[in-house]
Amino acid sequence: MQELSFTTNGKIWLEINNEKVLGPGRVELLERIHSSRSIRQAALQMKMSYKQAWDIIKHINSCFNSPIVLSKRGGKGGGNATITQDGLELVNQFHSLQRKFAIFLKGNVIANNILSKS
Amino acid sequence: MQELSFTTNGKIWLEINNEKVLGPGRVELLERIHSSRSIRQAALQMKMSYKQAWDIIKHINSCFNSPIVLSKRGGKGGGNATITQDGLELVNQFHSLQRKFAIFLKGNVIANNILSKS
Repeated sequence: MQELSFTTNGKIWLEINNEKVLGPGRVELLERIHSSRSIRQAALQMKMSYKQAWDIIKHINSCFNSPIVLSKRGGKGGGNATITQDGLELVNQFHSLQRKFAIFLKGNVIANNILSKS
Repeated sequence: MQELSFTTNGKIWLEINNEKVLGPGRVELLERIHSSRSIRQAALQMKMSYKQAWDIIKHINSCFNSPIVLSKRGGKGGGNATITQDGLELVNQFHSLQRKFAIFLKGNVIANNILSKS
């Protein structure tokens, strides 16, 4: 009889007016922009196009009353992007949510002994 | 200034040895098999092919020590499928998890006033 080991896994994200605004992928994008100070670099690292990254950023910024990402385009040495204090706060809060979710997942497993015996 | 209303949303599923075994879609398939007593009907209702439904069922059954779906193929009036007691217990336990998850989501929202003021 095989050894069964059930785990509960999942994914969470933020919505505004039923529209997905921020999940783990977008948070990663924000963090990569924060460390590289470049939307182009962050997009490259995440194997997405510059346009895709820009569209995501425009969407995120449009969902908040103050910008999450500030960027200057072009110029010598290319553009420059920063995550605002509000953006960093948002990222931190999302991570805090993720930690609570991880605890939830660990604490809510289906008892496999009920299911593996008949 | 637009009215912001953040919600936390998400999805959970069960894994065995890091492989997805059961999520909301598969639970729905099991429930539809249970009420129609037919894999073909359940597949139709969920707009999937009979083969897709069968592959899912074979996979689910292979993950447990006792079958979750029992089926007789063909014969007069087509085949006949039932969900075992273990299968019904599994479905119930998944719904119970989903209810706890819904409570988790409601209780874990990001305070939008922090983010909407700068």
